[in-house]
Order: sequence, then structure tokens, then C-alpha cells
Amino acid sequence: MEKSICKPTLLLDEKKARKNIRRMIAKAKKSSVRFRPHFKTHQSAIVGEWFRQAGTTAITVSSVDMALYFAQQGWEDITIAFSVNLLQIDQINVLAKQISLHLLLESEESFKFLEENLAAPTKAWIKIDTGAGRTGIPAQSSEEILALAKMLAQSRNLRLSGLLTHSGNTYQATSPEQIREIYIDTVHKLSALRDLLNRAGLQPIEISIGDTPACSLVADFSGVDEIRPGNFVFYDLTQLSLGSCSQAEIAAAAGCPVVAKHPEREIIVIYGGAVHLSKQSLLQKDGTIIFGAVAAQKDRGWGSLIPEAYLTSVSQEHGIVHVPPAMLQETRIGDILTILPVHSCLMVNLLRERTDNICSPPGLFKSL
Amino acid sequence: MEKSICKPTLLLDEKKARKNIRRMIAKAKKSSVRFRPHFKTHQSAIVGEWFRQAGTTAITVSSVDMALYFAQQGWEDITIAFSVNLLQIDQINVLAKQISLHLLLESEESFKFLEENLAAPTKAWIKIDTGAGRTGIPAQSSEEILALAKMLAQSRNLRLSGLLTHSGNTYQATSPEQIREIYIDTVHKLSALRDLLNRAGLQPIEISIGDTPACSLVADFSGVDEIRPGNFVFYDLTQLSLGSCSQAEIAAAAGCPVVAKHPEREIIVIYGGAVHLSKQSLLQKDGTIIFGAVAAQKDRGWGSLIPEAYLTSVSQEHGIVHVPPAMLQETRIGDILTILPVHSCLMVNLLRERTDNICSPPGLFKSL
Repeated sequence: MEKSICKPTLLLDEKKARKNIRRMIAKAKKSSVRFRPHFKTHQSAIVGEWFRQAGTTAITVSSVDMALYFAQQGWEDITIAFSVNLLQIDQINVLAKQISLHLLLESEESFKFLEENLAAPTKAWIKIDTGAGRTGIPAQSSEEILALAKMLAQSRNLRLSGLLTHSGNTYQATSPEQIREIYIDTVHKLSALRDLLNRAGLQPIEISIGDTPACSLVADFSGVDEIRPGNFVFYDLTQLSLGSCSQAEIAAAAGCPVVAKHPEREIIVIYGGAVHLSKQSLLQKDGTIIFGAVAAQKDRGWGSLIPEAYLTSVSQEHGIVHVPPAMLQETRIGDILTILPVHSCLMVNLLRERTDNICSPPGLFKSL
Repeated sequence: MEKSICKPTLLLDEKKARKNIRRMIAKAKKSSVRFRPHFKTHQSAIVGEWFRQAGTTAITVSSVDMALYFAQQGWEDITIAFSVNLLQIDQINVLAKQISLHLLLESEESFKFLEENLAAPTKAWIKIDTGAGRTGIPAQSSEEILALAKMLAQSRNLRLSGLLTHSGNTYQATSPEQIREIYIDTVHKLSALRDLLNRAGLQPIEISIGDTPACSLVADFSGVDEIRPGNFVFYDLTQLSLGSCSQAEIAAAAGCPVVAKHPEREIIVIYGGAVHLSKQSLLQKDGTIIFGAVAAQKDRGWGSLIPEAYLTSVSQEHGIVHVPPAMLQETRIGDILTILPVHSCLMVNLLRERTDNICSPPGLFKSL
């Protein structure tokens, strides 16, 4: 029996998500690169199965805890794509003994600690900053990278696999062309570093990249060994605004009850705020800032975005939705609005455990 | 035995929080107003006990689920300070039969639904917008307010208690004086409405207000019947910047492991991002935007804010912390930084269930 929504509820369009998965897998195959999707976007055993059924065997996560969770779900080849947290060495050792574990290093300090404390062999990737400016050794610091690579080549338990980056700077791009340019620049920088390491006798050195904008917009991954996109399984308004997805590919939303209407301000108030959608905002081309947008209702799932219907602010539990007058007139208190998120990873992280009241019309929606 | 922190961990200074509770209770007593603290800030049975031990009997929550949770913990007088969500009528009826339940109404539409569907008596408050512009009937719409009050006075199960507002506009104030002015304006508007209702033969009509900035900065609550502040139990950087608390009163923080250092950019990277601290940012007077600030380490708890040490960005799991050169030199990978939050309610909501690794030096820290 179909359960109805009575509070902010995660809606997943399984069909769209599986299609997003299949398309990215086909693309990886065409370029003969390893597909190691990032599971931080969904953090879900169920969605993990959608990937497994499509042929995925290697995955990426962003914390030791997520690695432990997915190892329990039978995943045996996991990269923790986060500069290794030395304080979780005990859990890292549990994993290292159990699965094929990949860690990220970016300093001699971390190397020395792991060299002394790792209890089983693990793969090691050098985390490179190719321009995102978050973390990693800057690509131009080639001597530092070579020195760390040489240490890894001599290590007791760490096996140097290659160079890894997350080109998060694609999220600041203003056009798909710019995203493709950032991708080319990234691969260029990593290839030059690989050559340097090869000349020093270190090989094979693989190259791993992994942002959804580039992986969605680039057709050919020549020169790369592995891609690690995550967000593409659901996409969101940020990806839509970057041009890396279409509206029809967005596969995650929140169903939120209407609790008040303010016609004089063209405002609908929903039960759905920062603890459901996150405080992530998106600067639109017209200079306004939004926290989500409203999609049209459909019998099953949702339709296109409704023009001029978007969240203008969120507090802890409230969402303030600007809507056009016609929609405001039709909407009643107790209706459900379907909100597409600015950032699906953060929304899913907040809503995924609220599973006691999930809308599941047969064959379309699935909860986590 | 003391457990050490190995991943982003909620740190509560119980001593400071209990002091914040006692001070607000004393203030309410002095003005002879009912103290009905908002429990959305902590959402915790344990912190609830700190209030109970200080004499609190009536509480505020922001969702039906929170009301059910605290009713289970023995709280028998609960206001759901959120425009009533009609879709949860079944749970509302469970609560209405069990405790003294207070609901917020702001429309005839909701009134009619409740009139037909409520199964037991509940208290009703008319939600007034005194200038925050979030939700509620605008204070100037006195005819609409009077009409709703008259309906409530005739109701079968709804008992009109009074007028309630959340003056969230205090959060936009630029000085403590302005916060006090907003408070005076709020009380003035609500008193005028009470007079109007009284003249129509409706009484007693109580006045309930409840933002932490005003409740912290106003000394005398004459003319008000009830205060509902929540954030004050922990305070945060937002309250500090508004002038509603001192550094020494901030009672919640996050302990976050250092995973990388970038001396050339004066940056430390911590394991601690949007899924731990939220994406709530704070615009500082110098025009910079921060997502948290670093407090000095102390044997137990934390000391003052370190000048020039603050989070400049957060992604899902990463926090980028700008620190002064001397601190950067002293800090090692695997150290813990104590981060004071921009918004304690959102941080606590994210970290409160991650209880498997909480730092608890005896008598100082407590987890939720």
C-alpha cells in the first residue's frame, strides 16, 4: 500500500538514478577507465545495490566510517578519498586486513605515522591539488610529490598506486566550456607529474580524477585510469546551473508539507528547512539566492521546474517559498510541494535516516 | 576513563550550559513571566534534565516528532512553535490526549481542519508576524487576527491562549540597542492586539515571545506572559556577533581532527565539514564570511577564540581553517581543533547522534 507523506521526506526517482548510473558506466567503459563512483552522495546500501547490479565493483567514500559501512555491505575495493585521518588508525587497520583499501596521503608526516602503524598492506594515492585550492600537494610542487612518491615506493605496507585529484574548481566554472578546459588542464598537470615519477623509475603510476561536472561534460577520458564522480547519481540544481545535467536527470527531491500561505507576499511556508535541505544556497544568474526550487506534481514522481517557484530562505525547520500568484491560489495548506535541492549530497545526508514515512508509489520512488 | 576524540565530535560544556539556564530562569522569575525554553537547540533528553533540575516544567519544540520525543521523556506541557502541520493530525491527537499541548494557528483553513479533526482539547496560539517576515498573520492585519480569535473562542476543542511571535528580525540587528528597540516594538504591537481582543470580550489573552537575542539583552519583560528562547543554552558565534552573549558563555563546540597543513596558504585542513557544522555562515564586520572559529585548547574544555583562526569554507566533510603562522607551525596532523559554531542549533542537530566517540573528561564535557 502506498504511504502518504506527512513530513519532510526524501523522494528518489529510482528509474532516473539507474539511468544516470548506466550512462556514466557506459562512458567509463568507452574510454576504458575504471569506474569507482563516490558513495558519499547516497551513503546507502540500497542505492549501492543499483550500482552493483550495473556492474560496479570498486567504490569511493569520504570517511573511515563510510568505508566500514560499505565493507559490511560486501564491497571489497574501497578508496577513502579524504586525506587520511590518523586518529582512526585502529579502524583503518580493521579495513586494511579485510578489503582492498586505498588511502590518500599528502605529507611526510602522515606517511611516517602510517609506516609505523599500518598493520596490513594498503594502496596509497598521492593527493594532488590541481587548482581547487582545498587540499592536496599543489601540482607545481613537483619535488615534494616526487619525494613522497619515493618514500611510498620504499614502504613496508603502503603500495603506491598513483596520483589522485578532485578538481572542485569546476564548481566555480561559468560555462561547460570552462569545465572542459579545467578537465584538460587537470589531466595535463597529472600526466606531467606521472612522467616525472616514471622517469624516476616509479611505475605504474595511475591517474584518478573525480568531479561530477567534468565527468558529465567530458566525452573522452584518454590519459586517465580512473574516474570517481558521485553526485551524478542524483544530480541537483547546482549541476543544472553548471550545465552538467538536464532537469530530467535530477533524481532526488524532498516532499514538504505546506503549513501557511501569504498571498500578499506571494509566499508559501513549508515544513522543510535547514535540517532537511541544508543551508546550501545557489546564486542565480539574476543575482538572487535560492535554497531549492519547486517541481510540478505528477501522479508518480515529479515534472518540470515551475517558473518563479523557489525557496528564498530556510531556517531550522521552515522554508519560505516564493511562488507565482496562480500557483499560490491553487495551493492548499496540507498539500505537498516537491523541492529539488541545491546540493543533493547534503539533502540526502539529512533526510536519509528519516525513513518512517516515505512515499513509495510502486516502482518509482525508493527510500534509502 | 577518558575517551579521546578521533572524528568530528560534539563537545558540550555542561557547567557553562547550566549557568546559561540558571541565568535565564532567574531573569524570567524577576519579571514574573513563564519560562518555556525552546528545546530544538539541543533535542536532547539529557540537556532537558539540566532544565528540569533547574525548575523548568513547560517547554517549546519545533515539530510534532520532537513533541512526541519529549512527551516520552515525561514533559507534560509542550508548545509546538511551528504553524500546525495538518498532515500529522494522528500524532497530534495522540499528544493532545496525553499532555497539555499547545498549537500555533495562523489561518481559517487550519482552524477548520482542526475543528473537525482534533480528538481532545488543546491550547491554541495565534501566530503573529511582528516584523520578521517569515510566517504568521501580519500584526497590522488586526481584523484577520480578531476574526480568527473569535473562531477559536467558539471552538469545540481549541482553547484560545493568546498571541505568539518569534521576532527573528533581531538576528538582522546591527547593535544591541536595535535588538532592544525591536523587542519594544514587538511587545507594543502584541499589546495593542491584546487590547483589541479584550475589547471584543476575549480574555485572558497571553503574550508569548521568544528569540534569544532579545531575551538575552532585555532586562525587564513587563507586559509579556511567556518567553521561549532556545539558543541561549549553548549560544554561538552569531549571538556573540549580535552582542547577546560573551565568548565565555558559548557552551557547544566541535572537536575536529587535523588532516593536512598548507603553510604556503596559512591553511589547516580539518575533518569537519558541512555534514558536521552545517553550511551556516556569518558575515564579519571586515566583510569576510566564516563558518566557525577556533578556540584555544585547555586541559578541560576550551579557552578564548584564537585571533585570526577561523573556517573560511566547508565542503561535505572538509573544513578549511585559516590560522596565524605561529599556530600553523605548532599544529600537527592528528591534533584536534576546537571549533565554535556559527549556529549551535544546526551543528548540534548534525552531531548529536554521533555518540560513539565522545570526549568526556570527568565533570566537564557531556555528550547528548
